[in-house]
Amino acid sequence: MPTILVLNGPNLNLLGQREPHLYGAETLADVEALCTRKAAAEGFKTRFHQSNREYELIDWIHAARGATVGIVINPAAFTHTSVAILDALNAYEGPVVEVHVSNVHKREAFRHHSFVSGRADAVIAGAGIQGYGFAVERVAHLARQKKAP
Amino acid sequence: MPTILVLNGPNLNLLGQREPHLYGAETLADVEALCTRKAAAEGFKTRFHQSNREYELIDWIHAARGATVGIVINPAAFTHTSVAILDALNAYEGPVVEVHVSNVHKREAFRHHSFVSGRADAVIAGAGIQGYGFAVERVAHLARQKKAP
Amino acid sequence: MPTILVLNGPNLNLLGQREPHLYGAETLADVEALCTRKAAAEGFKTRFHQSNREYELIDWIHAARGATVGIVINPAAFTHTSVAILDALNAYEGPVVEVHVSNVHKREAFRHHSFVSGRADAVIAGAGIQGYGFAVERVAHLARQKKAP
Amino acid sequence: MPTILVLNGPNLNLLGQREPHLYGAETLADVEALCTRKAAAEGFKTRFHQSNREYELIDWIHAARGATVGIVINPAAFTHTSVAILDALNAYEGPVVEVHVSNVHKREAFRHHSFVSGRADAVIAGAGIQGYGFAVERVAHLARQKKAP
Amino acid sequence: MPTILVLNGPNLNLLGQREPHLYGAETLADVEALCTRKAAAEGFKTRFHQSNREYELIDWIHAARGATVGIVINPAAFTHTSVAILDALNAYEGPVVEVHVSNVHKREAFRHHSFVSGRADAVIAGAGIQGYGFAVERVAHLARQKKAP
Amino acid sequence: MPTILVLNGPNLNLLGQREPHLYGAETLADVEALCTRKAAAEGFKTRFHQSNREYELIDWIHAARGATVGIVINPAAFTHTSVAILDALNAYEGPVVEVHVSNVHKREAFRHHSFVSGRADAVIAGAGIQGYGFAVERVAHLARQKKAP
Amino acid sequence: MPTILVLNGPNLNLLGQREPHLYGAETLADVEALCTRKAAAEGFKTRFHQSNREYELIDWIHAARGATVGIVINPAAFTHTSVAILDALNAYEGPVVEVHVSNVHKREAFRHHSFVSGRADAVIAGAGIQGYGFAVERVAHLARQKKAP
Amino acid sequence: MPTILVLNGPNLNLLGQREPHLYGAETLADVEALCTRKAAAEGFKTRFHQSNREYELIDWIHAARGATVGIVINPAAFTHTSVAILDALNAYEGPVVEVHVSNVHKREAFRHHSFVSGRADAVIAGAGIQGYGFAVERVAHLARQKKAP
Amino acid sequence: MPTILVLNGPNLNLLGQREPHLYGAETLADVEALCTRKAAAEGFKTRFHQSNREYELIDWIHAARGATVGIVINPAAFTHTSVAILDALNAYEGPVVEVHVSNVHKREAFRHHSFVSGRADAVIAGAGIQGYGFAVERVAHLARQKKAP
Amino acid sequence: MPTILVLNGPNLNLLGQREPHLYGAETLADVEALCTRKAAAEGFKTRFHQSNREYELIDWIHAARGATVGIVINPAAFTHTSVAILDALNAYEGPVVEVHVSNVHKREAFRHHSFVSGRADAVIAGAGIQGYGFAVERVAHLARQKKAP
Amino acid sequence: MPTILVLNGPNLNLLGQREPHLYGAETLADVEALCTRKAAAEGFKTRFHQSNREYELIDWIHAARGATVGIVINPAAFTHTSVAILDALNAYEGPVVEVHVSNVHKREAFRHHSFVSGRADAVIAGAGIQGYGFAVERVAHLARQKKAP
Amino acid sequence: MPTILVLNGPNLNLLGQREPHLYGAETLADVEALCTRKAAAEGFKTRFHQSNREYELIDWIHAARGATVGIVINPAAFTHTSVAILDALNAYEGPVVEVHVSNVHKREAFRHHSFVSGRADAVIAGAGIQGYGFAVERVAHLARQKKAP
Repeated sequence: MPTILVLNGPNLNLLGQREPHLYGAETLADVEALCTRKAAAEGFKTRFHQSNREYELIDWIHAARGATVGIVINPAAFTHTSVAILDALNAYEGPVVEVHVSNVHKREAFRHHSFVSGRADAVIAGAGIQGYGFAVERVAHLARQKKAP
Repeated sequence: MPTILVLNGPNLNLLGQREPHLYGAETLADVEALCTRKAAAEGFKTRFHQSNREYELIDWIHAARGATVGIVINPAAFTHTSVAILDALNAYEGPVVEVHVSNVHKREAFRHHSFVSGRADAVIAGAGIQGYGFAVERVAHLARQKKAP
Repeated sequence: MPTILVLNGPNLNLLGQREPHLYGAETLADVEALCTRKAAAEGFKTRFHQSNREYELIDWIHAARGATVGIVINPAAFTHTSVAILDALNAYEGPVVEVHVSNVHKREAFRHHSFVSGRADAVIAGAGIQGYGFAVERVAHLARQKKAP
Repeated sequence: MPTILVLNGPNLNLLGQREPHLYGAETLADVEALCTRKAAAEGFKTRFHQSNREYELIDWIHAARGATVGIVINPAAFTHTSVAILDALNAYEGPVVEVHVSNVHKREAFRHHSFVSGRADAVIAGAGIQGYGFAVERVAHLARQKKAP
Repeated sequence: MPTILVLNGPNLNLLGQREPHLYGAETLADVEALCTRKAAAEGFKTRFHQSNREYELIDWIHAARGATVGIVINPAAFTHTSVAILDALNAYEGPVVEVHVSNVHKREAFRHHSFVSGRADAVIAGAGIQGYGFAVERVAHLARQKKAP
Repeated sequence: MPTILVLNGPNLNLLGQREPHLYGAETLADVEALCTRKAAAEGFKTRFHQSNREYELIDWIHAARGATVGIVINPAAFTHTSVAILDALNAYEGPVVEVHVSNVHKREAFRHHSFVSGRADAVIAGAGIQGYGFAVERVAHLARQKKAP
Repeated sequence: MPTILVLNGPNLNLLGQREPHLYGAETLADVEALCTRKAAAEGFKTRFHQSNREYELIDWIHAARGATVGIVINPAAFTHTSVAILDALNAYEGPVVEVHVSNVHKREAFRHHSFVSGRADAVIAGAGIQGYGFAVERVAHLARQKKAP
Repeated sequence: MPTILVLNGPNLNLLGQREPHLYGAETLADVEALCTRKAAAEGFKTRFHQSNREYELIDWIHAARGATVGIVINPAAFTHTSVAILDALNAYEGPVVEVHVSNVHKREAFRHHSFVSGRADAVIAGAGIQGYGFAVERVAHLARQKKAP
Repeated sequence: MPTILVLNGPNLNLLGQREPHLYGAETLADVEALCTRKAAAEGFKTRFHQSNREYELIDWIHAARGATVGIVINPAAFTHTSVAILDALNAYEGPVVEVHVSNVHKREAFRHHSFVSGRADAVIAGAGIQGYGFAVERVAHLARQKKAP
Repeated sequence: MPTILVLNGPNLNLLGQREPHLYGAETLADVEALCTRKAAAEGFKTRFHQSNREYELIDWIHAARGATVGIVINPAAFTHTSVAILDALNAYEGPVVEVHVSNVHKREAFRHHSFVSGRADAVIAGAGIQGYGFAVERVAHLARQKKAP
Repeated sequence: MPTILVLNGPNLNLLGQREPHLYGAETLADVEALCTRKAAAEGFKTRFHQSNREYELIDWIHAARGATVGIVINPAAFTHTSVAILDALNAYEGPVVEVHVSNVHKREAFRHHSFVSGRADAVIAGAGIQGYGFAVERVAHLARQKKAP
Repeated sequence: MPTILVLNGPNLNLLGQREPHLYGAETLADVEALCTRKAAAEGFKTRFHQSNREYELIDWIHAARGATVGIVINPAAFTHTSVAILDALNAYEGPVVEVHVSNVHKREAFRHHSFVSGRADAVIAGAGIQGYGFAVERVAHLARQKKAP
């Protein structure tokens, strides 16, 4: 089964604990379970990571080159500040879908700009952890489409 | 069965015909079929409209007050210019999910700002027509959640 | 009795129903009654319209040329987006007073700019529906003044 | 009879004398007479001041705390530059209505921004000295409303 | 004879009546006559429309797909505000020439930006109604050129 | 026969040779022939110059005072940078029409602003060398009109 | 004992009375007592003033030249608007510490800029009235340091 | 002998004492002597004031209406912040020349904008106290010119 | 004894060695000693860290949740660039005081904006290492206050 | 006698002929006469040039190095666009005074910025040709001062 | 032999593999070989590092203090976002040359700004890996020059 | 031997004489010698020019079309202001390398933008006259590369 990489940025290890009015009560373990289930239904498996370290996200993206069929990424705070992650994704050949648990467009102005969106195929914001499920489905769809023709 | 309103803005009547490199080859009929199928799976029915007329979109949103459980809207070009649609949605009590077929963040700068995003619960961009399916699922989820407690 | 045209823009048909913390509990019928009463006290009659359609507002302004002595207009959301209404008012020869029920200067930044204010003789914001009464009085005053000399 | 404070900022002592094409021919004495008459009709009396001194306006606002039911203020040039008057008004508990004799929105760009508008309940611009009458009526209305429930 | 579509935006029905110092004394009937005459001289016929309704302009552009060889458009106020018309033109396959009766670059700053110019092949501003004649000639030239090779 | 001055700015000596996808294959000699023919048809003769030297353009404009009935100018790169040419044109009493071979509004942002447009009576961009013909016709029209009354 | 001047700007006479959620319940008398106590502990005495008058603050700064060893200043609203106070401080030879009771960086954007910060040695914001104590300690430290070598 | 009013803004009482590298070593008494001498040579006398109080400058300008033939003003820090002084000068009928001892264009960005320059007939910056002499000469010249025809 | 966490960002390991005209001659060991002494005097102990690694600062903040009563943080260069640290602090429940050794407001423009200030309770800049002492005192005060009621 | 160089930029050869409402009726010959007379009175002679050519102005400034005691320059349109003239002046060792006949601060926004002001010792605008006289006097003063100590 | 430190930022480990149209086909090993060869020719040796970790770059810069004669740095994505690297370089005493393989000025706008350029002695962009060679030569030159006098 | 054109913009004739702290002590003759030597080592000869005249630089670029294999250009002040030179380079078919003696990124903000960088293959700033040598080497490399395949 081909693999979809699911990456989570800084502070998401606290999902379900911090600011539940913004991020809800579900944890990262819930997100992982959801991604695995959704991916399986599409005929894919997932590799799932979270890090507060920008370089780990970069290294995982590098390692995904040639080894995975697509990336789902919630860059969290790095969304707005990391050109390095953008450049790593620019060096990745497969589809990329960006996810945000909250609707970043309703929050502070500095959260309205995403470096990653300039590379991502799709952006899903504000759909809670359900957004990860959608992202996995989209990556699966794009991966099949790429293979098909 | 409770109803989800699905609204489409200007030029979407040409979906599948205009600029296929941006919008793909599927038509609005395909979108409607997808929404109906997805909604049915969630236990909802849909009301589906497209218009090039800003006022029709406003009137349909007004009519949805008290009559539908949520709105999926692809405001198309009005995304970036219509405060009137934003105000109509502000007067609507249920969940709203905004959809864009293409990833607007990769296009001209004026497409990066959405008046509707300030009101929407979630925003899905660049997931092709699949994005409508995700939006219907999200509205269904939020409608159930609202009813639940 | 000379006529004052009172125009209302999009979503004002919901006045009294939507967002009462912003717009109060009085309806458009209350506004019409107030305008009629105020105008009568000044020796004028009113023609009163509301529309969610930008073109209807334009058509009514065109029709007012030579047929009315002044215009009271609450352009609502079109305030911030419609150059077409500004141009229609530019083609109108009499006094124009712009009204907003809420104090737009305390709301989102995009509501601080009005295309109509560049043409209006006076602007009244945040005085609730009482603002319409003031506007009618001002138009009556200006109409009399214009006639006088 | 409860009191409404009417404040006038710098250069308004010259009203009727300076730039009549902008400000008309009526004097501050005319404004005072109008305010007194309007207030009386509503069951209020007025305290009326003008100063070219920012601190006097601040001191009068401080003195109005607990002693008046509302403030009508034409901050004139201080509109655009005085955070200190804004802060004084922020420390005032009653309704505040901002008045400008001319339509500031048709003049230089720096006159389009008002620090006071962020605090005022209503803003009336371009209605000549008649605007003071409207402001008194609005303050009276709000004062009654506040008392009522 | 192949057809050139000539479209006119809001308030142009008042051409010759409103603000003659800006727009001159000639009417839309004069414009139509000029376009017909110029087109005939080039071996084309014209379809000529004016509307204050954004959606009618959009619908006419849609209808022109496959049915006309080019479009001359004076979007008037919609020039500066309508992404929807831009998107409709983006879905049109033939040449487009944008016309403005007055020199918009000498007027208010908001008239200096045109959404349509990002799609138009040529832009002609300030040449009075003569500009329509030039636009028809240019569209004719481009239509012949397209056919030629 | 009265004279129309036709001026061409820097790099236009390479017209037809440089970047033909932007500027086409026709040369400056073709432009001159076209202008002469168009002017003759209107009863005018032309004086035709090109220079890479800002001062020559200025000197020619100075020399045109009292000696020509109008100016057609393609300031090329100087469009965006030369206040000196604007000032020279401000000192010229007759009509001025600005021409650009390519549609500058579709190119880099710095090409969207023209100092000359603040003085020109008309601006024609993107009509290829045909634009010169239109400009000559417009100047001829304005020159006749000026003389007429 | 050398003297530290402690200056307070407009509306601070209301400290403890106005907007306690922003400024707390302690009064200016409490501030003065705190400053005196802190200064005494460091071997200094204080001169303590408050004014709503920009010129009094300027005059006190002028008078402090050569007569005090440092200034603690809470310019309040004048922070954001007074170049005149900045210039007075520029003419002062000793250390200056700027204090704000509330954290101005969490409030309106116009409160994020301080003219005084361009001159102050240190800036303390959001530490409540405790901030005055810190400022006195810092000025005392700098005054001793200056004297020492 | 007609009178020229010479006004000096805040902190200029310290001229010659504060920041001599910016403002030189001459005092305001030197400036007054220079102005008197220059004015006498032109057949005028001067009225000379300095204040740190914005309102005094305003009051002196008001008092100058009808009583003086022109104003020389160094608004100092108020240059950049006082709309009230601009408005007072707008109400003054004679020539106004603005003076700055230092070249404000070489200093902080906020010193590059002057409200007063929008009203002044001439602006002289960086000529030291000699600039006052030039300003007096210019006002004298304009006053004579006004009287002459 | 409850614990206060004191965090130091990148390059602060060089304190006392790098750019002493900006940062002084005292080292981080001096800072730690000062914090310990000040905290002890208030009845608290401190945990003291420095890192050039953004993720370590984040991890320390996470670890402080529920384990410390407040945070003193000098984010150094991360002040201006790290949304991730802001988000970590947003997930922290206790008081936060931001410290900068130098007065950042007198340095490059990019140092005037702090992401952390949007979360911090107080900000102390330019008070040298003494600022850490003030910060510890403020956190102690807030921690006691929180506990008190 | 030491020499002062007086330089005039583009279009000033038309002084007295072009736009007399802006520039007055006096010619460049009048300016030269005035400069000669003023300089003589101060014990200097002048070298006087005008050019529409940026390079001539540069060459003259280069030639002035070591050969003149100061420069009076009216860069005209080059004021706002020429970094090359600024750089030439930066390579000049003596005093420089910038003159503008009209008050550029009352004209178009692009005339408010001067590259030359960043180098000039003094700037005189709006004093008509009298401004040249002031500039010569100022340069003479600075040249003497430089020599004196 | 004195040492030159050569540092490479994030994603440069993929050099030669990612986006060859931007970065060419040569690898980081090629870069290292080139640097070694160039340095040797100048009488220097190199220490060569690459990291995706911002902190490692900082630590290497710290370690270079007193141990190397200069730094060549290609900060890659950190160029545009890292104040921490800038601060580390500010604490370094030797020459610094910044290198970019591609011409960043022809790419996205956010790549046009470099924090490092405010500290670097020289900046070389778009010269491919040859740029590293130039940088080594320049550092060698500056290091010799520094030593020389 | 193929030729590399080396162009130098305004004021560079003073190299070695003006502002040596910025530009060093070497002269343009030194630059020419360096370029000749470097080019010879690569098997190329150079044509070397300097001018204060924008048009000469343009004419030399035009003349280089088809006659040289590449251009090294230090546009000096024209870097920031000349679209005409950019357009001339756009019409040139070979490689272009931009050189600046000083590090423009450390100087005034207006020197941070270069029109030429949008066309240049490489940009070298702050490497003193050594930068010319690097540029010649880079052009030689690109010229060989172009020929090779």
